[in-house]
Amino acid sequence: MGNYKHILLAVDFFEQAQSVIDRAIALANINQASLSLIHIVEMIHLADSEYGFDGIMDADISNEMIAAAKIKLTRIGKELGVEQDRIWIEMGSPKLEINRIAEENQVDLIVVGSHGRHGLQLLLGSTANGVLRHAKCDVLAVSLNDH
Amino acid sequence: MGNYKHILLAVDFFEQAQSVIDRAIALANINQASLSLIHIVEMIHLADSEYGFDGIMDADISNEMIAAAKIKLTRIGKELGVEQDRIWIEMGSPKLEINRIAEENQVDLIVVGSHGRHGLQLLLGSTANGVLRHAKCDVLAVSLNDH
Repeated sequence: MGNYKHILLAVDFFEQAQSVIDRAIALANINQASLSLIHIVEMIHLADSEYGFDGIMDADISNEMIAAAKIKLTRIGKELGVEQDRIWIEMGSPKLEINRIAEENQVDLIVVGSHGRHGLQLLLGSTANGVLRHAKCDVLAVSLNDH
Repeated sequence: MGNYKHILLAVDFFEQAQSVIDRAIALANINQASLSLIHIVEMIHLADSEYGFDGIMDADISNEMIAAAKIKLTRIGKELGVEQDRIWIEMGSPKLEINRIAEENQVDLIVVGSHGRHGLQLLLGSTANGVLRHAKCDVLAVSLNDH
């Protein structure tokens, strides 16, 4: 059985993200796989009928978030030797966008952090759970507890 | 960063389980990790107040299921060179039992198949999703679509 050829690392910018990055690098090295990076800027849908407001996040804020993400992700990409054309910043639903990019680019392993298993997240499910539910390839959820 | 040292493969006996087994073997080899096996016989809780019945699955059926699982899992263990003391057959909730055994045995990676992402399972969540939600270590969900 062949090993992984194209690993997609879903990066968030939490403090503990480094352990997920480290794990993805180790797996890419050990499998001699290509490594790609993705970060999703979540669209926050603001619905407040009481105040007669129902719209999505302000375009300026979205653009700022994308610009900030681009700087951070490019920096991480440089450290890891990932070329610019293997770095994606997308807007929308993390689980859908991560899986879309994975499918479009023949990714065979998605690596994602598995934080957020308490409080509301336990009900709503983490990004890792959402990715897993929709993935057509393997998914590695890296625990942020042990590291 | 160290690689995985102890991989726990959650085996079910679906037809496609071989691809999950293959992936776990490849990862154990590539990481030079120990490999353990687990299979969970699910307790089916029968509650039917209309007929005045509320009990768990008949003990004879449970014992038969455990015996059958033991034969199958022992055979898989032999093929993979896994010693008997690294093979667990447990009864109960897959997500809880898999994670319990993982914690008790310093497992750092659980490998589980990710089938069942349609129909009711999409609402209820697969075993992989359940394991992921409760895991304190990394979880690799192996897709059964591509193989």
